[in-house]
Amino acid sequence: MTAGRTVPFDLADVPVLLARTPAVLRVWLGDLPSPWLQANEGPDTFSPHEVLGHLIHGEEADWIPRARLILEHGPDRPFESFDRFAHRRRLADRSTAELLELFARLRADNLAVLAQWDLAAEQLALRGRHPELGEVTLGQLLATWVAHDLGHLAQIARVMATQFAAAVGPWHAYLPVLHRATRSP
Amino acid sequence: MTAGRTVPFDLADVPVLLARTPAVLRVWLGDLPSPWLQANEGPDTFSPHEVLGHLIHGEEADWIPRARLILEHGPDRPFESFDRFAHRRRLADRSTAELLELFARLRADNLAVLAQWDLAAEQLALRGRHPELGEVTLGQLLATWVAHDLGHLAQIARVMATQFAAAVGPWHAYLPVLHRATRSP
Repeated sequence: MTAGRTVPFDLADVPVLLARTPAVLRVWLGDLPSPWLQANEGPDTFSPHEVLGHLIHGEEADWIPRARLILEHGPDRPFESFDRFAHRRRLADRSTAELLELFARLRADNLAVLAQWDLAAEQLALRGRHPELGEVTLGQLLATWVAHDLGHLAQIARVMATQFAAAVGPWHAYLPVLHRATRSP
Repeated sequence: MTAGRTVPFDLADVPVLLARTPAVLRVWLGDLPSPWLQANEGPDTFSPHEVLGHLIHGEEADWIPRARLILEHGPDRPFESFDRFAHRRRLADRSTAELLELFARLRADNLAVLAQWDLAAEQLALRGRHPELGEVTLGQLLATWVAHDLGHLAQIARVMATQFAAAVGPWHAYLPVLHRATRSP
């Protein structure tokens, strides 16, 4: 038996983790046959291609803009609402290769902004106001940026695995990734 | 609204998908700070480092050996049982970098064997005997090889995201990757 081992939140880990995501996605999705890029889990769920668009919109409209709002205005000015489907208008005609490039560039730019801010640990307690969730902190926003990336990596793996849910036959019972009936994007 | 889009099982996709996993893991886990490599979801769950060991054991003892048993003996000779914790003895002292190399090498070797077999579609119906599940087909085994990889990629993302389950504060409600209480390895 092994014990549970956890990692406490550390500001220094945030760019280390965030910097990997574009590279992971490039290796994983680059040149993947188109049906796999477009596959999803049903109506109004994201395909791997769509996850990329959603991550790009997050780089443009969510993480750094919200962090800037916290740093400049605190909780007095609420964040803009984030539209989880905005990429369907903005990026509808882009190829996966284009989205991979764009995501990598935006992520690098945003990590440069974060590095330039040179945040101190005590700034993580600075507060902002989420339009639905109420008061949140800068530290929570940065932790969410990381967890959100990882959630969508898990989603891509699950969406792809789900394509073989029938093909695996009786092994279905041994594959927990196929047991989750989530349909949320 | 977008419709559901699925990908039917196609033998040609199997090596395309399987070949990506070592590269994805190298980009994702290479040089990751050690606490992240060792983090898990509680006692007797896999860390990212342990997932690598488990995938290596699968290359050695599961997929190709079982496929060979199907091709050479059919359902008369049951597969060996697969020990999901065997890597804890076999690979206990290996670094993550060593495991990444070993996995990439074994996977490439196994894909070369698969290519050499040059399987025809009708061979996918060939039968074998799983010690617990009973009769299975070669096609089901190959689909499971792919889905098993993807399940463990999803697991790595979830294990890492879970480390920030408290740090995200009220955003927890918006992150489905944190809602799954699975403890199975």
